[in-house]
Amino acid sequence: MDILKQKILQCAQVIDDRIIKVDSFLNHQLDIKLFNEIGKEFKKRFADREITKILTVEASGIALASITAQYFDVPVLFAKKHDASNLGKDTYESDVYSFTKDKSYKIRVSKEYLQPQDKVLIIDDFLAKGNAMAGLIDIVEQAKAEVAGIGIVIEKSAQKGRAMFKEHNSKLESLVIIESMNNGEIIFK
Amino acid sequence: MDILKQKILQCAQVIDDRIIKVDSFLNHQLDIKLFNEIGKEFKKRFADREITKILTVEASGIALASITAQYFDVPVLFAKKHDASNLGKDTYESDVYSFTKDKSYKIRVSKEYLQPQDKVLIIDDFLAKGNAMAGLIDIVEQAKAEVAGIGIVIEKSAQKGRAMFKEHNSKLESLVIIESMNNGEIIFK
Repeated sequence: MDILKQKILQCAQVIDDRIIKVDSFLNHQLDIKLFNEIGKEFKKRFADREITKILTVEASGIALASITAQYFDVPVLFAKKHDASNLGKDTYESDVYSFTKDKSYKIRVSKEYLQPQDKVLIIDDFLAKGNAMAGLIDIVEQAKAEVAGIGIVIEKSAQKGRAMFKEHNSKLESLVIIESMNNGEIIFK
Repeated sequence: MDILKQKILQCAQVIDDRIIKVDSFLNHQLDIKLFNEIGKEFKKRFADREITKILTVEASGIALASITAQYFDVPVLFAKKHDASNLGKDTYESDVYSFTKDKSYKIRVSKEYLQPQDKVLIIDDFLAKGNAMAGLIDIVEQAKAEVAGIGIVIEKSAQKGRAMFKEHNSKLESLVIIESMNNGEIIFK
């Protein structure tokens, strides 16, 4: 996706060879025009799939999932990370280990909003080691729903998250794949 | 906004006379079609204002702000609540006391993304006592930017948040105002 590659080259900050900061357009300030292009691209890539719901995780996935949902005409469901006491007791839960923060956190979804007949497109901003995505897939599977597709905005292939889903027969689409970021230089695959 | 009142009457759960749960369409599962109507309505109500940016706070404000931003053609900025170490040091901060959770938390925005020339529309899902909104206004004022408007989806007038902004000369628009929720019955103003 060329427009996204351009934006990354112009605006992203490479912190080290593993971490890239995209706060100016994707993670803190949100370039909604770009998000519309991202949503259209996801629709194109998953045009062959029946989708009944888009699932993501707070916080930075929410805007992406919401703008994208307009092109699929389905509701969004976002997993909650923090103090989710207001969700009630009846939730699907999964533990996610964050390498960036070196700690685990729980993600949670109310059982009410995921049904066995749901065909779920999971959307997230980054795929690195794949732990957050594994947690979201775990939740869909607990609900006996189907993972109809996995849509990632930026995949960092050096962190090998994709390998985690090799056995899984869901279609995984990343809009851009960053192969390396050595010495601050971003190399796309 | 009639379509929103209908949705609240059909789908909201009154927990007690102060708390209403709207997880099925506004706070956890997101009815994006309804969000589009909400965005259009905000555009109508603030049509007379020049807006350069929409500000909200994670997590439940993000989807509302993002869908709404399409009608204003401006970027979104969301204040971070949690472990915002990845934001860097150069942030505007404000303390917010949550009555629901009986604790305070910090909200933060990178200084880079709020400029004195910005005319900011602040969007949030609820107005209760007004503490989160006061924190967002505080951040806009620290940046010497202008609060061009305040857009709320559901105002609970019994909790008197509006009074907090009486002195403030910003236009505050709530799409629906709930006057009372005694014995589980929602009365709109």
